[in-house]
Amino acid sequence: MTNLSRIAVDAMGGDEGVAVMLAGVAAARRRFEGMQFYLVGDEARIREGLKSHPNLTAASEIVHAPDVISADDKPSQAIRRAKTTSMGIAIDLVKQGKAGAAISSGNTGALMAMAKLSLRTMPGIDRPALAALMPSLGDNDTVMLDLGANTECDARNLVQFAVMGAAYARTALDLESPRVALLNIGTEELKGTESIRDAATALRAATHLPLTFTGFIEGNRLSRGDVDVIVCDGFSGNIALKSVEGTARFVADLLRRAFQSSIRSKIGFLISRPATELLKHHLDPNNHNGAVFLGLNGLVVKSHGGANEVGVATAIGFAAKLVREDLMRRIAEDLGNFEAKAA
Amino acid sequence: MTNLSRIAVDAMGGDEGVAVMLAGVAAARRRFEGMQFYLVGDEARIREGLKSHPNLTAASEIVHAPDVISADDKPSQAIRRAKTTSMGIAIDLVKQGKAGAAISSGNTGALMAMAKLSLRTMPGIDRPALAALMPSLGDNDTVMLDLGANTECDARNLVQFAVMGAAYARTALDLESPRVALLNIGTEELKGTESIRDAATALRAATHLPLTFTGFIEGNRLSRGDVDVIVCDGFSGNIALKSVEGTARFVADLLRRAFQSSIRSKIGFLISRPATELLKHHLDPNNHNGAVFLGLNGLVVKSHGGANEVGVATAIGFAAKLVREDLMRRIAEDLGNFEAKAA
Repeated sequence: MTNLSRIAVDAMGGDEGVAVMLAGVAAARRRFEGMQFYLVGDEARIREGLKSHPNLTAASEIVHAPDVISADDKPSQAIRRAKTTSMGIAIDLVKQGKAGAAISSGNTGALMAMAKLSLRTMPGIDRPALAALMPSLGDNDTVMLDLGANTECDARNLVQFAVMGAAYARTALDLESPRVALLNIGTEELKGTESIRDAATALRAATHLPLTFTGFIEGNRLSRGDVDVIVCDGFSGNIALKSVEGTARFVADLLRRAFQSSIRSKIGFLISRPATELLKHHLDPNNHNGAVFLGLNGLVVKSHGGANEVGVATAIGFAAKLVREDLMRRIAEDLGNFEAKAA
Repeated sequence: MTNLSRIAVDAMGGDEGVAVMLAGVAAARRRFEGMQFYLVGDEARIREGLKSHPNLTAASEIVHAPDVISADDKPSQAIRRAKTTSMGIAIDLVKQGKAGAAISSGNTGALMAMAKLSLRTMPGIDRPALAALMPSLGDNDTVMLDLGANTECDARNLVQFAVMGAAYARTALDLESPRVALLNIGTEELKGTESIRDAATALRAATHLPLTFTGFIEGNRLSRGDVDVIVCDGFSGNIALKSVEGTARFVADLLRRAFQSSIRSKIGFLISRPATELLKHHLDPNNHNGAVFLGLNGLVVKSHGGANEVGVATAIGFAAKLVREDLMRRIAEDLGNFEAKAA
């Protein structure tokens, strides 16, 4: 029986180290009532870190892991060390039903490979996908998947991503029938690869599912809030997401240069600082932290490697919500309905 | 014999109509000495429009075209109307050697299809590519190709794009040995598709070419100015470029909202307006206008559909520079060198 209220935390992963992970866990503990944790990693360092967070000690159990996956470890090397690393042991706690979800800020490729090998894909899913939330101009964030788990995808993969992404949007964003679109290089029916066009045909026919298929979406409308779920292969998804991140930073850098270009503009900047802070808050990845591997028999959340305490707490709260609202069951049900109709 | 100094202008294409095209041509005429033009389109409308630009009349010859390609025309329909449309006739003037380049703000797919059919690909090139300039934080703009001409590409296509893109950067940006990178989802050698990895191997070996291959680049560094030429298949290139455009607009919209959120920030905005104007200028596509189809036996420049007078003039000046500095010959030479070494 899965312990819904307990989250397994890889306390060692991430660029920021144990202290930030523990501070994030402590913040999540304060924010969300009744949560409990496995803190997986070097016991001595975790025990030392816990001294700064007395409120966390009672809600946590330390699980010692002698080894750590580094940012440079290749996925193929990492999986051989599943049993001794903090990342591998955190995932194993989910597999054993001791935790409702595992969370790590470590090496994404290694996390994906380990999670896939340990938890296996759900019945009806050919390949898991990495899904994340992007800020948008709409009322809610936008779900995007796959973001790099699968370099090449066929139509069947894309349809499964759409079903999983919609279930995820219903759970994470509290939407009833999320608007789902396929990422493409044009909106006309004939655009794109055969896989994308075939996936569109299948999704147009799937009117019995709790999603609203809206057709194709182009890269320039990713952040407009026109749709709730954007589906793509892992290669273009990774390119698109990183292009969005990079451009937001690029514009922010240009803006900084522009504001520093004269005394007058420096003064203007100081006066309007609350406005630019609002912008910064909206774009700060720590407020949208927590990518999820969908399609596995267990929940694994990837926190951004550079996440700060707030970001880690966001990702943990997010994982808890997905567990509480039983994302896995929703995906299984929707897939069942889709397959039943298609059969 | 190609008339180097004459540019064939599709006066009818683009969202903004004949008046903007002619105003753009007139501005280019003022900016660049000695240029001459074919103005292709509805004779009566062009003649009417020319009344506002007396300086242009002497430098232009009107070529009547009874028909126009619209934004909705499919490429397959468009190519059947090559002989009667302003776009088709402008391209034909290049084919006949009467013009050094053709320029159009019309339907990209139709322009590409017509140019390919009429001008054919250069010897040694399997597929032409669409290349454009993107703003960057570096000293010069960054060339990116392919941007949508080829949905799927093999290693050989990517290598040819790299050679053409480097020749283009040498010509358009006056660089000696442009830094060339392949767009990928990671920088490690094993990342990405087989096509990308094979293209990297070939480019690493091509040390005799006037380019510096720097490996892979990810989406988040497109605008950093680390490289001069970014090579990709048309699908991910289109997604990346549109993601960049969309995000720049997204951030600008957020900024506008933020600045309007209080009187204080409105005042701050007014004071710092010179700074934000600088930003706007840097990101304004009209200052980077002019995508080029590379790999054809003739030069065809695509001006942005929404380009204003400044944008059209930029694209024309750009086309003239590429003609003057003989981009076509440079591409042919580099390809010859590459093939000779590889053979």
